[in-house]
Amino acid sequence: MPIPPGPFTGRTLARLAQDLRERRTTSTDLTEQALGAAAALDPGLNAFVTVDGTGALEAAKAADAELAAGLDRGPLHGVPVGVKDLIEVAGLPATMGSRHFAGYVPSRDAACVARLREAGAVIVGKTTTHEFAYGPTGDRSANGASRNPHDPSRMSGGSSGGSGAAVGAGVVPLALGTDTGGSVRIPAALCGVAGFKPAYDAIPADGVFPLSRSLDHVGVLAGDPESCLIAYRALTGAGAPAPVEAARVAWLDASDLFEGDPEVVAAVRAAAGELPEVRLPDGFAEEVLRTYRAIQSCEAVAVHADRMETAPELFGEEVLERLRGAAQVPGWSYVRALESRERLAAVADGLFARHDVLALPTAAVTAPLIDEREVTPAGRPVPVGVALLSLTCPWNVLGLPALTVPAGTVAGLPVGLQLLCRPGDEPLLFATASRLPA
Amino acid sequence: MPIPPGPFTGRTLARLAQDLRERRTTSTDLTEQALGAAAALDPGLNAFVTVDGTGALEAAKAADAELAAGLDRGPLHGVPVGVKDLIEVAGLPATMGSRHFAGYVPSRDAACVARLREAGAVIVGKTTTHEFAYGPTGDRSANGASRNPHDPSRMSGGSSGGSGAAVGAGVVPLALGTDTGGSVRIPAALCGVAGFKPAYDAIPADGVFPLSRSLDHVGVLAGDPESCLIAYRALTGAGAPAPVEAARVAWLDASDLFEGDPEVVAAVRAAAGELPEVRLPDGFAEEVLRTYRAIQSCEAVAVHADRMETAPELFGEEVLERLRGAAQVPGWSYVRALESRERLAAVADGLFARHDVLALPTAAVTAPLIDEREVTPAGRPVPVGVALLSLTCPWNVLGLPALTVPAGTVAGLPVGLQLLCRPGDEPLLFATASRLPA
Repeated sequence: MPIPPGPFTGRTLARLAQDLRERRTTSTDLTEQALGAAAALDPGLNAFVTVDGTGALEAAKAADAELAAGLDRGPLHGVPVGVKDLIEVAGLPATMGSRHFAGYVPSRDAACVARLREAGAVIVGKTTTHEFAYGPTGDRSANGASRNPHDPSRMSGGSSGGSGAAVGAGVVPLALGTDTGGSVRIPAALCGVAGFKPAYDAIPADGVFPLSRSLDHVGVLAGDPESCLIAYRALTGAGAPAPVEAARVAWLDASDLFEGDPEVVAAVRAAAGELPEVRLPDGFAEEVLRTYRAIQSCEAVAVHADRMETAPELFGEEVLERLRGAAQVPGWSYVRALESRERLAAVADGLFARHDVLALPTAAVTAPLIDEREVTPAGRPVPVGVALLSLTCPWNVLGLPALTVPAGTVAGLPVGLQLLCRPGDEPLLFATASRLPA
Repeated sequence: MPIPPGPFTGRTLARLAQDLRERRTTSTDLTEQALGAAAALDPGLNAFVTVDGTGALEAAKAADAELAAGLDRGPLHGVPVGVKDLIEVAGLPATMGSRHFAGYVPSRDAACVARLREAGAVIVGKTTTHEFAYGPTGDRSANGASRNPHDPSRMSGGSSGGSGAAVGAGVVPLALGTDTGGSVRIPAALCGVAGFKPAYDAIPADGVFPLSRSLDHVGVLAGDPESCLIAYRALTGAGAPAPVEAARVAWLDASDLFEGDPEVVAAVRAAAGELPEVRLPDGFAEEVLRTYRAIQSCEAVAVHADRMETAPELFGEEVLERLRGAAQVPGWSYVRALESRERLAAVADGLFARHDVLALPTAAVTAPLIDEREVTPAGRPVPVGVALLSLTCPWNVLGLPALTVPAGTVAGLPVGLQLLCRPGDEPLLFATASRLPA
């Protein structure tokens, strides 16, 4: 049974901003709606680790006072927001989804949270993350699995699973996530919302617990791509995009990366409309996936090696096993992976020579069941992580901006269309999203 | 028995340039002297893998013709030069000191060789390198050990052992080397000449066979520091240094890095004159040496992994064993080493806040015997590689300019004084060298 729509389902940030300025609502009202929805819906979703009712209402009152006094901080002013529990918010527990951080309360805001506050946003609470963000399923966490609002027996996707579930259920109109191999885009796609992973380092990662430093990206989830753009601009200070010519868009046949569920691929392709088709160069898919695994493995263990040594029992079994496997990757493979990344970036540049935006599925499967570890999207069993990550992680290796937008449903479950561009072409990316036939 | 002085012993590049321009000699004459000395002395030194008499005399004639016609390419014009056999010279074999490259003849010049030619230098031949430059002793090479001109039963040092021996014996006035952990400075010091490892990437490494890409530096060896500066300027296009104030020089007590032979340390310190003393911050020495080993190991295996798999028998035993050990370093250690390098660079910056130039021994031992694998400079046995590298490799980790200058002898064997500065302060470094009391 799907979770019923929450108070923010179908409400864009642009509309909320207008309503606030035309006095049809207040930040306090919006915040109370979010808190009420969290109280009502979260038992079925587990989207939140911490809800900060007191702090949120205080921030909302301050936002209302500022707006009433004519101090306007822009489109996020007064808007309730969820923040992934991997991102530090001063005074709120940050568990990182791990028992290692039980009881940890940071004293400073992460840089992206400080920017949210400067933009007047109201932080409602911390959203569930896969343990240390090390997994795309969202169902391994010290705080329990986050659940899919379209079918709570299914995964939210991860690792920003709580953010996907909270926005997908309309509990909040916006949430922050992080994306190392798809951790913003996968839950966004599986939960039926939009998610944007900007270019590498576009949103600063200070105060965000690392998974794999050279692959980690801070991103945003919202109901629609235009709202993602608004949040992205507020977080980065990016100017209003100049009106752009229609982008040159191509469909990227990504079957070399992953042979997905044909129904999902067909649905996403239909949502993208009629497009010329391009393929990846020979060998690119294998090399980029190998490169992703080597980089992520070594960088993740560099973060966790001491905890693995001193307190292995505080890890969940699955994450500990993955880390132990990752610790076996030799250093020279990592060095080669960094060299591959440079080669691949040059090749990818060529892919964009004749097209500004490439379209492909975000994940070529719908949300698996909670705890499912093998799926058979195309007749052969594959590990669930491979099925979820293979179409998103290549763009972390390359640091490319990547946006997922809702592309309808297959068997009642949402699927996402992923759009890619080169850094600097974000206006073309969002313009493409706004002109989709769907 | 020392090798008798060669034709270039005691002749600076400045003096050669003057003699050429005042018609007291010709490039052909200088080149014939170098070729003659190589023929006479190299049987005892093994400094050269390849001597290119024909090519050198042709280049010398062209240089003479240009000079006679009034085309002056600057201070290297007409000067005979040796080039380490790890650096590609079009048309000459490049063995890399390895049987893997037996018969390999590159068709293009390395970037630094192209610059030598543009500067009018005459390439006399290729100098012996330790196998793949992977060792500081110079006595493991497919081409045999290079020998110390001051005592041919002893090591030249390495890996640019042939360059050290050729300049040390006065066969050529200048040679190119490469330095990943001390491979220019160690043979220079052990052979009684000057050697300069510039800042990272100051001389381009294109066409130089890599040992460890982020630590590899191209450098120069000559009889005296002023000649190194002349060659460095010719290779980089660096302008004439403005007259500089006396540098603030300190003696760096490097005993945390390596407890050297007290006689060597005392001799070098005496050569440096009266200086204030500084120490490394606590923990710095251990961290920088660990960082060096992790980076070098992983990057070296990244270069050689395929050869190790397909043709291990073509490696020398010692180098293969080292590579196999290096292949065991896990990727996460490499990631941590890169993080350490950033931290250490910040600390090193602090070291230079009150001093422009730091002075310490280049190696705190004199040249060991060929094949000696353990030395006891301070009462305890240590591996020869540790004894040779520990005072030079930290500055490769940090990419700092480092110059070694002759600092007299201990028991008849040369010792070197090492001077360090921050990139950009090279004029202060060379000014310090020119004002040494010795």
